[in-house]
Amino acid sequence: MPDSSMAQRVSLITLGVADLERALAFYGALGWTPHAQSIDDVVAFFQLDGFVLALWGRSELAEDSGVVDSGGWGGVTLAHNVSSAAAVDAVLDAAADAGARISRPAGPTPWGGYSGVFVDLDGHPWEVAHNPGWQLDGAGRVSIG
Amino acid sequence: MPDSSMAQRVSLITLGVADLERALAFYGALGWTPHAQSIDDVVAFFQLDGFVLALWGRSELAEDSGVVDSGGWGGVTLAHNVSSAAAVDAVLDAAADAGARISRPAGPTPWGGYSGVFVDLDGHPWEVAHNPGWQLDGAGRVSIG
Repeated sequence: MPDSSMAQRVSLITLGVADLERALAFYGALGWTPHAQSIDDVVAFFQLDGFVLALWGRSELAEDSGVVDSGGWGGVTLAHNVSSAAAVDAVLDAAADAGARISRPAGPTPWGGYSGVFVDLDGHPWEVAHNPGWQLDGAGRVSIG
Repeated sequence: MPDSSMAQRVSLITLGVADLERALAFYGALGWTPHAQSIDDVVAFFQLDGFVLALWGRSELAEDSGVVDSGGWGGVTLAHNVSSAAAVDAVLDAAADAGARISRPAGPTPWGGYSGVFVDLDGHPWEVAHNPGWQLDGAGRVSIG
């Protein structure tokens, strides 16, 4: 690969939040644990499998990213794949219990799977999906086809 | 972990785009290759290391996610970590050559690293960062601390 190209990977996903403590409580209720050394009043990092998810103040993130904040959804949706339709229901129930809005109730999808969507307390949607056409290994790693 | 909680992982990041062909050309210019069986007129998938990035029509994504599209940035920024400041510059140059806007020129960061930000053709910002405080292995996997 030439030096000037960009490797095909994502290192970090940062979600802008209005209230870090509230956001940490939400993801904590879902079972997520931030990296011990990163819990402070400013930003929280969750170690994922080879990459990281961060929660940071949305206004700070907008400024750091050099973008104008339109205040709503901006064309990004995350997904969390699980191994069965029942697991989709369980995660959506847990998210609702934690205070998420269910923006699309779980059901069969046009692509032959089963999914629903919750929106976290800061407006970030997460599809929770069972996709029988993709491989999901025991460590939760997803492979297309 | 109880069945009702959500494992600490992200399976898929979907970026809404206005023109899939244009978006594919942009990421292709950066060296990204979509999964062969997924290139069609509707959606494109890029296999990452254990997860997937998708490009899909933004209006379809909004509808599928059950959210209202505010039309701008929505509080999500991705990052791509590299192993040196020079590599940050090279990726940002490549992105600019591919038509991205540089929303924050590369420079030293308050956290002791070096980074800059480009915004893709659909308004999605990517920080390109060298973070000497995180581990980046030969496969591009990132570990905190």
